[in-house]
Amino acid sequence: MNDADDITYAVRAMRQSQPLVHCLTNMVAAPLSANALLAAGASPAMVDNPHEARATAAAADAVLVNLGTPQEETVAAMREAVAGAAQAGTPWVLDPIGAGTLPWRTEIARELLDLSPPAIIRGNASEILGLAGGEGGRGVDSRHRAEDVIDEAARLATRYGTVVAVSGEVDHLTDGDRLIRLANGSPLLAQVSGAGCALGALMAACAASGSGALAAAAAGTALLTVAADHAAAIARGPGSFAAALLDELALLTPEVLAEEVRLP
Amino acid sequence: MNDADDITYAVRAMRQSQPLVHCLTNMVAAPLSANALLAAGASPAMVDNPHEARATAAAADAVLVNLGTPQEETVAAMREAVAGAAQAGTPWVLDPIGAGTLPWRTEIARELLDLSPPAIIRGNASEILGLAGGEGGRGVDSRHRAEDVIDEAARLATRYGTVVAVSGEVDHLTDGDRLIRLANGSPLLAQVSGAGCALGALMAACAASGSGALAAAAAGTALLTVAADHAAAIARGPGSFAAALLDELALLTPEVLAEEVRLP
Amino acid sequence: MNDADDITYAVRAMRQSQPLVHCLTNMVAAPLSANALLAAGASPAMVDNPHEARATAAAADAVLVNLGTPQEETVAAMREAVAGAAQAGTPWVLDPIGAGTLPWRTEIARELLDLSPPAIIRGNASEILGLAGGEGGRGVDSRHRAEDVIDEAARLATRYGTVVAVSGEVDHLTDGDRLIRLANGSPLLAQVSGAGCALGALMAACAASGSGALAAAAAGTALLTVAADHAAAIARGPGSFAAALLDELALLTPEVLAEEVRLP
Repeated sequence: MNDADDITYAVRAMRQSQPLVHCLTNMVAAPLSANALLAAGASPAMVDNPHEARATAAAADAVLVNLGTPQEETVAAMREAVAGAAQAGTPWVLDPIGAGTLPWRTEIARELLDLSPPAIIRGNASEILGLAGGEGGRGVDSRHRAEDVIDEAARLATRYGTVVAVSGEVDHLTDGDRLIRLANGSPLLAQVSGAGCALGALMAACAASGSGALAAAAAGTALLTVAADHAAAIARGPGSFAAALLDELALLTPEVLAEEVRLP
Repeated sequence: MNDADDITYAVRAMRQSQPLVHCLTNMVAAPLSANALLAAGASPAMVDNPHEARATAAAADAVLVNLGTPQEETVAAMREAVAGAAQAGTPWVLDPIGAGTLPWRTEIARELLDLSPPAIIRGNASEILGLAGGEGGRGVDSRHRAEDVIDEAARLATRYGTVVAVSGEVDHLTDGDRLIRLANGSPLLAQVSGAGCALGALMAACAASGSGALAAAAAGTALLTVAADHAAAIARGPGSFAAALLDELALLTPEVLAEEVRLP
Repeated sequence: MNDADDITYAVRAMRQSQPLVHCLTNMVAAPLSANALLAAGASPAMVDNPHEARATAAAADAVLVNLGTPQEETVAAMREAVAGAAQAGTPWVLDPIGAGTLPWRTEIARELLDLSPPAIIRGNASEILGLAGGEGGRGVDSRHRAEDVIDEAARLATRYGTVVAVSGEVDHLTDGDRLIRLANGSPLLAQVSGAGCALGALMAACAASGSGALAAAAAGTALLTVAADHAAAIARGPGSFAAALLDELALLTPEVLAEEVRLP
């Protein structure tokens, strides 16, 4: 088995199992993330209150925690969801938006990591650096390239026994030991608010199907970025690209994915 | 008058009165619901805090309460809105997302029903069953078909003196006495997050215009599902379908609706 | 320099500086506002909790406060953001959705105005009238035309030393002394929920680049409404219009803007 086979296998498994993905995410990315999951063949459950988050996480096939717009009540729900996921053995994905830049959410991210290690941590280079202890970025943009933080990503992966997926022009994914690089995608992705958040949701969907976390992170990345290649070929700009991205996510077959994914 | 005439009349009345629909809805469906109301000819007011919900509900022509992502403050606002609607005689619609699956929101739904009966309860089969006392679904999907829960729907309608609208491949709407079935729509609707929530909003808009609740629920359903037929004919996938759905809602005339609505 | 030159200059400056715009906005408009900023060349930061709002505002190039769906925690964040903006000298924009109609948020708007005057207040005629002390509108619609409230707008501008931008069929912008009128735009803008909110975000982006507040408000207005002219020419309805609007915002050059902006 090579990486491309693992990716294709994880996508097939996700499509067949139609996993329920419990998303605790931000107000900007919630619609796109739910729609990306539906387009890709998964099912979203967007429950972000502390009364219901633990039971929902335990009943779901995977959980996504995204720190884009945390508030007191949603943070309490995140704690419940991670605890519920840990009890049930449900894989969860952490998307630490703004980590390293904003101290409050950086502390929340670390608290959740210590509560129970996620299957995957997904972020841009600045966020991964920020979570690892360095200086973060500015807003949602990254000051660093993925390849510049690969050592920090590997150390973070080893420390928590998790996969760290660093998004960038070339995506870098590592479990601390192996490294997968993916080179699909379009600059238009950076012009769609919440595209990175939707990527975290897709990784969670792929992690739900029993594939290993590294293959799941790569499969989610391949799904979004190959779909983005197709969408960019027909889009006039970021608005038509966002609609086409969902179309292409739904139309993308594992066969085409296997042919077109670029693993340099 | 037959059902098709009632539906056409309710749509015409809604378009003429441009009702203000006060929506207390979830973070995923809020943009699509507001845009569906605008496309259909109504006007949304998305006020979900307890300070302003009572006055807004009393001033609005209809109120929608959707339990997709309830939190403490929005639930307090929902109580105020239902109380305000009851005082002012404003019709309100309950969309009990996740009822029967998640105990906290199931209790909230029942509390709101007891506070003042809504004009319409809209849900999928699992949610209607869950609200009636049975076991619910999983996430936002339904384990049951609409036709399987029609007895429970009729009993729920009779108990609260309301209309129960069960969404499905064939939509089943009942006031406990009469039954209307509508057979338009596309599988793509299930791939657009919040499409069902937007349906609840459209029912509220139609209930605002003085039409009976059963005709209003059928009119809202006909608007969304006939527009979906048109959108599905030109869409490449769920992204282009969602944009086309809003276009078609705006373009749909009562005449075309009357011709194309399927009432088996 | 004439108004068209000032507008073109402000757009160019914004595109070159790629300002970080801190948005505290409503749940309906958040995705469109973030996407409009990205399409226009700016960068959004959607941080709406009180723990992080002050530091984010101080680090940002501009701040937008939109009162569409205020809740206790986001209002606390708005106070922090305005205080942080005042300390750092960051320009901020107030979008007082529903002011004059709903007393709670009207009080909040006045409290924020007294805390530190914004660079720009943007609203429809009813909201500007409501903020100035008159009776407001109904929902998000305006009962009044922009030209009918120009005296109140000028007085409000003088009182707070700010620019007041009144959106309407013809947009009226004043600093209390000068008046700029802009006549681009499409009726389809009123069918896209959050388009006005996105306009506030674009004004903030233009105010970030060191242009004067009146030029910045005019530049934001020109960007959205000239893009709307282009989008309306190819749209079938409000759904395709919303996608095309983002495309056209990204495609619009300062040269085309200068040619097509209508300043009657």
